[in-house]
Amino acid sequence: MSGHNEAYGALATRFQRIGVMGDVLGLLQWDQATLMPQGSADGRAEQMATLGVLRHEMLTAPEMADLLAAAAVDDPWESANVARMRHMQAHASAVPSDLVAAQTKAAAGCEMRWRTARQENDFLGLLPSFREVLRLAREIAVVKGEALGLSPYDALLDSYEPAARSAQIDPIFADLRDFLPDFLAEVLQYQASLVEPVAPKGPFSQAKQQAVAHRLMAVLGFDFDKGRLDVSAHPFCGGASDDVRITTRYHEDGFLPGLMGVLHETGHALYEAGLPAAWRYQPVGAALGMAMHESQSLIVEMQACRTEQFVGFVAPILAEVFGDDAAWEPGNLHKFYSWVKPDFIRVDADEVTYPAHVILRTRLEQALIGGDLDLGDLPGAWNDGMKELLGITPPNDGLGCLQDIHWPGGDWGYFPTYTLGAMAAAQLFAAAKDAVPEILPGIGRGDFAPMIGWLRANVHSHGSRLSADELLVQATGRSLDPGAFQAHLKDRYLP
Amino acid sequence: MSGHNEAYGALATRFQRIGVMGDVLGLLQWDQATLMPQGSADGRAEQMATLGVLRHEMLTAPEMADLLAAAAVDDPWESANVARMRHMQAHASAVPSDLVAAQTKAAAGCEMRWRTARQENDFLGLLPSFREVLRLAREIAVVKGEALGLSPYDALLDSYEPAARSAQIDPIFADLRDFLPDFLAEVLQYQASLVEPVAPKGPFSQAKQQAVAHRLMAVLGFDFDKGRLDVSAHPFCGGASDDVRITTRYHEDGFLPGLMGVLHETGHALYEAGLPAAWRYQPVGAALGMAMHESQSLIVEMQACRTEQFVGFVAPILAEVFGDDAAWEPGNLHKFYSWVKPDFIRVDADEVTYPAHVILRTRLEQALIGGDLDLGDLPGAWNDGMKELLGITPPNDGLGCLQDIHWPGGDWGYFPTYTLGAMAAAQLFAAAKDAVPEILPGIGRGDFAPMIGWLRANVHSHGSRLSADELLVQATGRSLDPGAFQAHLKDRYLP
Repeated sequence: MSGHNEAYGALATRFQRIGVMGDVLGLLQWDQATLMPQGSADGRAEQMATLGVLRHEMLTAPEMADLLAAAAVDDPWESANVARMRHMQAHASAVPSDLVAAQTKAAAGCEMRWRTARQENDFLGLLPSFREVLRLAREIAVVKGEALGLSPYDALLDSYEPAARSAQIDPIFADLRDFLPDFLAEVLQYQASLVEPVAPKGPFSQAKQQAVAHRLMAVLGFDFDKGRLDVSAHPFCGGASDDVRITTRYHEDGFLPGLMGVLHETGHALYEAGLPAAWRYQPVGAALGMAMHESQSLIVEMQACRTEQFVGFVAPILAEVFGDDAAWEPGNLHKFYSWVKPDFIRVDADEVTYPAHVILRTRLEQALIGGDLDLGDLPGAWNDGMKELLGITPPNDGLGCLQDIHWPGGDWGYFPTYTLGAMAAAQLFAAAKDAVPEILPGIGRGDFAPMIGWLRANVHSHGSRLSADELLVQATGRSLDPGAFQAHLKDRYLP
Repeated sequence: MSGHNEAYGALATRFQRIGVMGDVLGLLQWDQATLMPQGSADGRAEQMATLGVLRHEMLTAPEMADLLAAAAVDDPWESANVARMRHMQAHASAVPSDLVAAQTKAAAGCEMRWRTARQENDFLGLLPSFREVLRLAREIAVVKGEALGLSPYDALLDSYEPAARSAQIDPIFADLRDFLPDFLAEVLQYQASLVEPVAPKGPFSQAKQQAVAHRLMAVLGFDFDKGRLDVSAHPFCGGASDDVRITTRYHEDGFLPGLMGVLHETGHALYEAGLPAAWRYQPVGAALGMAMHESQSLIVEMQACRTEQFVGFVAPILAEVFGDDAAWEPGNLHKFYSWVKPDFIRVDADEVTYPAHVILRTRLEQALIGGDLDLGDLPGAWNDGMKELLGITPPNDGLGCLQDIHWPGGDWGYFPTYTLGAMAAAQLFAAAKDAVPEILPGIGRGDFAPMIGWLRANVHSHGSRLSADELLVQATGRSLDPGAFQAHLKDRYLP
């Protein structure tokens, strides 16, 4: 089938290197967030900046543009591969090398400082290095936007979610913004008519939580021979190909955040593990944008693992590990799982209020990147937004604008993908259940094979061969349809 | 002082990158040996091969030779830096890129397989990948030897210990070979007249051993804010600048191997931590060859930490952690520490028999690289050598020719540096005690500052500015003098 020319062969060799460098950066990042001694931060920043610059130089080498122009292929995978190469090269070429280096270094340093600042609610202490990270992000947004013909914010968004545009997202988010407050009020009113669920009694030792995590990861099909679970301040899925490393954080007073972090990141990990091995290190062999990645974590955490079937399966395991407690009764546990309560922390938020957190962040980062909000005014703007969207005010910045690693770590334009992912997850899970009736009963027995099999076939194994839209159409029969998400919310949270 | 030209500036920029890449490789290696899932071995091999090739390409870029020819400096540090650059470039240029990649990949794969093979005494199972590693090492030795005008074996040796030659080492080792058997017999005869030391009773839990390790590392001045202690199959000191990661292994039935591993690797770590920060990432800022590195580990493990003073300091700590036992009595413990007994494992060997292990390995690797011994015949040749040199025969290959990671990991020509280091350690410690009378009393109080201060000033802070010989002459008044080592052995092991 494959009929590529010499230029394509040369590109494949170069992108193989670029892909491997990405894996190395993934491992350095994982180590930084889990094990690295604090005093090694500067050295790590230097390492990551050096690799970042090297990768950037490879992507922007003068020959690269010529090779991309000369590449001729007649295989759909290779053709998609070249398209992804062009996308990466266009993004990289738009930004000068020294700006990339400055950003990588500033972000690594700021991320380290953020860990302390968050614990100590010290926004002002973080501000100087935070300002530098934002300044560089804005500079990058502007030069990228000019090169790609996009607004500065869209230029950043496009690097996480190819082809996504504010013009499409803003109306979707506005629609959700209109839907949510009334819906939330309706849910809270309905909940008021119910007996409140009882929280299982802690403390939940880290060792026991970890034992549960390992057990459920194995049930989901996580391969511990090619991956690890560790602890970090902010859960993430990272590492490298065939070495997928997820993290979570444990609170001894509640088992839910740690567990949900693990299920969520396992969803990401299954996507990484299911990517087409034949295209390892090539752009087309990588995951699609961040929204599709998030859909894979949410299809596990929110769609599958908050069903009555899953709760019925997991309740006896939790009772066995943590000890008898009437609260493990499946009906109570399911209610506890799906109880809606506006709160401060995004990663611990329930499914109904989560989009409000994302809408707030999207609005704020659009304003910060656009220059309409000064970073010094972020805490106030954050708290105003929380009040407006969820009716609550964070008591400190650790529970407010310092809670997320994204901005200090240099990730601007990323947040909208969480809610786009939630929508895609609802749509994909509905289609999967239609196609494979065995999915829900399987989950009830702790057998995820029917669901994971469908995801492997319809999402994971495609890598980046299709666009997000093409993939959704092929898998579900239609483009992203916010209605599927709203239908799911109504079905789960209203009588 | 500094009056360098543009070519030197360009070189410094390039070697900074090369130095940083070395740090990244150090971290990947550390991760591979400590935490990496088994199934990720191929991916890790790919990562290390890719970085190895990149580093090699940087060192051998066509402009590099011109820049080195054009570099003009008038500062002794810069001048030494250029000399080290030339040495690195000459070694790298001698070997084609694809050969480097093949070696890195083969060694990474073989090293993973070695872990199982060693546990299962499965020499034949390892043989195919082991043969490939040796084949590539011989190929490299030949092309390097031709380029540098050295014998194949000396070409490998020179990459670990610049300027070392078999012509100098062989007579020193022959001398030692002549000295040792009679000396060993004398020691064993003397020991036979003594009451045997009593071994403290185990089991020694890993957690308690680790607690002792952390405590003693802190006493020695290891900075846990810029380093870690972990567990691996074979103890090593690795990681990166300002992120020095040492490992050890614990046996529950004996506390000595784990403890001595920690003290040994801490010596290496202190050298790394004491290198001149102003020359970070530059060749002149790096440690001297492996012999000087080993001298720094042995000056801690063997010279300082087997003195009566140290034993007097550490005995109460061990009693406190592991529980009362008459065997912790300092006189008994010191005897236990310095009891000589020919045995199979090099890293657990006492100071007197250790050089025999090294002489055997040096002889065997000279024969393997020279083509005078087939790898398939290694187990037999190993066992014959053990019989000849120490009078004992390993019961299996795990306790014999499979015990060390070096050869499967691609490190050929490295072993002699252990005994060269032991000699340098004896000579340096004697000079240090002469210069700073406070050293021994300090050690008795757990105050290593006087000793570490002398090492910082006389060894660590010089980086690679001086040759090993120049450094020894400056620090001790003379070149490497095997007599210092023999005098030390007589002093410690005979009445």
